[in-house]
Amino acid sequence: MNVETTQTEPVTLRDKVRAFVETDWVGNAILAIIIFNAIMLGLSTSDNVMAVAGGFISVLDDIVLAIFVIELLMKLYAYGLRFFTSAWNIFDLVVVGLGLLPDRQGLSALRGLRVIRAMRLLSVIPQMRAVVQALLDALPGMGAVIIMISIVFYVFGVMATLMYGPEFYEWFGTLGRSLYSLFQIMTLESWSMGIVRPVMETYPAAWAFFVPFIIITAFSVLNLFIGLLVNTMQSAVEEEAEQEFEKLRDLVKSETDLVDAHVLALHDEIKALRAEVAALKGGSDG
Amino acid sequence: MNVETTQTEPVTLRDKVRAFVETDWVGNAILAIIIFNAIMLGLSTSDNVMAVAGGFISVLDDIVLAIFVIELLMKLYAYGLRFFTSAWNIFDLVVVGLGLLPDRQGLSALRGLRVIRAMRLLSVIPQMRAVVQALLDALPGMGAVIIMISIVFYVFGVMATLMYGPEFYEWFGTLGRSLYSLFQIMTLESWSMGIVRPVMETYPAAWAFFVPFIIITAFSVLNLFIGLLVNTMQSAVEEEAEQEFEKLRDLVKSETDLVDAHVLALHDEIKALRAEVAALKGGSDG
Amino acid sequence: MNVETTQTEPVTLRDKVRAFVETDWVGNAILAIIIFNAIMLGLSTSDNVMAVAGGFISVLDDIVLAIFVIELLMKLYAYGLRFFTSAWNIFDLVVVGLGLLPDRQGLSALRGLRVIRAMRLLSVIPQMRAVVQALLDALPGMGAVIIMISIVFYVFGVMATLMYGPEFYEWFGTLGRSLYSLFQIMTLESWSMGIVRPVMETYPAAWAFFVPFIIITAFSVLNLFIGLLVNTMQSAVEEEAEQEFEKLRDLVKSETDLVDAHVLALHDEIKALRAEVAALKGGSDG
Amino acid sequence: MNVETTQTEPVTLRDKVRAFVETDWVGNAILAIIIFNAIMLGLSTSDNVMAVAGGFISVLDDIVLAIFVIELLMKLYAYGLRFFTSAWNIFDLVVVGLGLLPDRQGLSALRGLRVIRAMRLLSVIPQMRAVVQALLDALPGMGAVIIMISIVFYVFGVMATLMYGPEFYEWFGTLGRSLYSLFQIMTLESWSMGIVRPVMETYPAAWAFFVPFIIITAFSVLNLFIGLLVNTMQSAVEEEAEQEFEKLRDLVKSETDLVDAHVLALHDEIKALRAEVAALKGGSDG
Repeated sequence: MNVETTQTEPVTLRDKVRAFVETDWVGNAILAIIIFNAIMLGLSTSDNVMAVAGGFISVLDDIVLAIFVIELLMKLYAYGLRFFTSAWNIFDLVVVGLGLLPDRQGLSALRGLRVIRAMRLLSVIPQMRAVVQALLDALPGMGAVIIMISIVFYVFGVMATLMYGPEFYEWFGTLGRSLYSLFQIMTLESWSMGIVRPVMETYPAAWAFFVPFIIITAFSVLNLFIGLLVNTMQSAVEEEAEQEFEKLRDLVKSETDLVDAHVLALHDEIKALRAEVAALKGGSDG
Repeated sequence: MNVETTQTEPVTLRDKVRAFVETDWVGNAILAIIIFNAIMLGLSTSDNVMAVAGGFISVLDDIVLAIFVIELLMKLYAYGLRFFTSAWNIFDLVVVGLGLLPDRQGLSALRGLRVIRAMRLLSVIPQMRAVVQALLDALPGMGAVIIMISIVFYVFGVMATLMYGPEFYEWFGTLGRSLYSLFQIMTLESWSMGIVRPVMETYPAAWAFFVPFIIITAFSVLNLFIGLLVNTMQSAVEEEAEQEFEKLRDLVKSETDLVDAHVLALHDEIKALRAEVAALKGGSDG
Repeated sequence: MNVETTQTEPVTLRDKVRAFVETDWVGNAILAIIIFNAIMLGLSTSDNVMAVAGGFISVLDDIVLAIFVIELLMKLYAYGLRFFTSAWNIFDLVVVGLGLLPDRQGLSALRGLRVIRAMRLLSVIPQMRAVVQALLDALPGMGAVIIMISIVFYVFGVMATLMYGPEFYEWFGTLGRSLYSLFQIMTLESWSMGIVRPVMETYPAAWAFFVPFIIITAFSVLNLFIGLLVNTMQSAVEEEAEQEFEKLRDLVKSETDLVDAHVLALHDEIKALRAEVAALKGGSDG
Repeated sequence: MNVETTQTEPVTLRDKVRAFVETDWVGNAILAIIIFNAIMLGLSTSDNVMAVAGGFISVLDDIVLAIFVIELLMKLYAYGLRFFTSAWNIFDLVVVGLGLLPDRQGLSALRGLRVIRAMRLLSVIPQMRAVVQALLDALPGMGAVIIMISIVFYVFGVMATLMYGPEFYEWFGTLGRSLYSLFQIMTLESWSMGIVRPVMETYPAAWAFFVPFIIITAFSVLNLFIGLLVNTMQSAVEEEAEQEFEKLRDLVKSETDLVDAHVLALHDEIKALRAEVAALKGGSDG
């Protein structure tokens, strides 16, 4: 019905474009091109393949990029500003846009960034979208703990830079270096043999800085994880409880209905009795 | 009943073989041989034992292999194509088959592969089967997240190969090397001191590639784990809820039955009353 | 009402000060100063910034410190001994007090300790307070396991010092060094390649000391975590159960009320019948 | 009552000894001695303390050991063979017995083993006993998975010894060395940089052996943990469900009792009515 109504109205070019980009086979074609592009990008890591077919692959890559750009331009035209209401569209735009950047950091970095395009697999396949969405949905519940960890990182980072920066420039020379080193320490990678023991040779009390940092961040991450888990579990349990309540309601209803039916039958019985008594009364009166 | 029917029918050789391989003592004998073989393989790691009894052990191993091959051939004959409907049979076939491979990669690798045979302990002991089955049952629920992690690995692998491959051939020279290195980084082993810090000496912005990779994979694995946990927990809770529902049903039934019994007694009482009223009416009429 | 009563009484200076420190804009101003101070401390890690504006930043830092000291003195005066009943006040006192310490361990350590002041972000922002409170609330439930781990650490620490101290002074020379090394081993950092393999070259049985230690502590930490998780989960489930109980109570009440209403209607019916019978009796008597 | 009865019977020496070792102050004295001994053992790790008071500490240690031996002998005499029915008694016996071993592996190892005695803190303090008991109670539920991991370890250990032993004697030379190295790899410590990358230089396909091993063991340990967690959670949920069921039973009972009371009141009403009808009948008859 709707479609007919639409067809009787003047169909703008915008409507036509939108109908086109929403067609199933267009979506499937884009998916096929993404997979083909991903495989091609994988092949382009092989020097042998590049020696034989480097120019060909480069041309194919430009064609794929052109197709993606055209697809996005059509979507932009079709949806206008509504295009930006979907985070997935913005993701696609950024990921395709990275392939259009001029070569500023040397060839290899540019070639690397182009590959991010294959991440569109996550935005095009609905099941993958659902998984990513589930991961992102978990983030808000973790907000407060993440801010707390950030404050702890910042404060410990500034402290480490001021205290150990002058002697250990490689690890704590700037705030950025300190934050990176603290992240490494949080992941427990070579924290003692690689960093804290050497620092302790100059500052013997350094353990009193790093061990509490490890315990605080480990405990915070643990709580982050527990919070996440309890949230997920709770919604699962809630659903379960909802179902059990339905079953219990049916049970209680059917049981009380049975008693109620008997009570109502009793009612009828008494009504009949009353009628008889009335008749008796009438008979007695008459 | 069924057995008698089978015995009256003509018994084929196939039936006899099946009955034989399904006999308890055959299963136990196979289990004993597997354990004996596992111990023997363990002993064969000792140079002293091999110096004294190497030839003997080698002959014993061939005998055990022959027994396993005969057992599998009998099962194959007994069950025909149905043999392949059990994943455990295929597991046994592969694991025994590895011992029949000709020596292509040198003696040590061959001897190593033979040992996989001891894994039959997992397929022969029912409790072990249950544990492995439980592990495998968890896999499908993890499918989407595993595919997502694979996409992330592939994209980051191609990027790393293109960006860091030329300079760090050892770690990122080919796609395979990159995937291995990324797996190592995901397990957090020497990721910073061993790989990222050296890479950052050439590419100072490399942390912006590896730190997000660590966070994304850690977060994905975490979600994998949470999903697994919630699934397991939910089925446990469901069972619990089922039991509680049974108890509640009994409770509600017994309580309403009590009331119902009283209501029905009331019914009898009123029936009796009605009879009396009827008698009264009759008496009054008469 | 209360406020009016207070205003009619003689207002002491103490009341005025308390009203002042509890004003919203004072709290916000303190928060702004903490954030400003945190950014300033971050900037002070840059040698370039310090070269240009080092003196200026140093003066600003002293001013901020003075403001914090005045704020705390006002609170101390306003609340008297009650000031110390809030753990957050004590936290603020310690954290600000560290900035007043004379420079004993050289400039860098002092500058480092000052930065802890930025931790006041955790005590001033209510959401952060809630997160930290939640973390601390989890501690008592973990008490017994933490004491157990402490005993295990102490015993293994003393043993390691006595057994390996003479040969490996760097790692196990004193009880303190042993405890630090055991903490490192518990975090699994370089435990084998870095510590146990070298020790095993002298004491080949050292694995029988360290592997059980790793298993015991890993298992204890696991149980700590499970205990924490089950506690959190349980309170969530309890709440859920409370809500479901409310719903069930409403359901059961409404259902039984329906039956009850019918029973009571029956009662009225029988009362009416009885009245009629009484009337009949009266009529029959009359 | 019981006590009096016991006193009227002839009191054997055994009964007296049992009463003595079960006295509160004896238990407290033993606890105090354990703590004192633990502190003393801690002090004995300091070379300075040993230089000054080494002989004194050594004598004290012998006295403490003597007290423990006497305590255990008294318990053995008091309880007889029943002494061995408590795992804690056997723990105490082993832990104290280690201090009686003659010095075979040199002084330091002996001194180390003596310290295990301080572990009696775990067996003497009831709260610690409960924690350890809870940890041990978790073990049976993990049995099947632990056996599975053991089989995987054994098979991979034998394979590694046969395949990599000849070239990498240090890591995989004997079955014992292989199992230790695999344990290290399972804990992810230096697995790649320290072991697998060097092995891959000789055997490029070694990743196909070690990466599956890591994934299998990680996944098994994960399942171990999930099983443990679900068990703990389930018993907590069961308790919760038990309590909710109690509340629901009370609710359903009180509600149906109300209806039942009304039904019974109805019964009385009808009985009265019937009496009146009977009276009416009598009156009508009469």
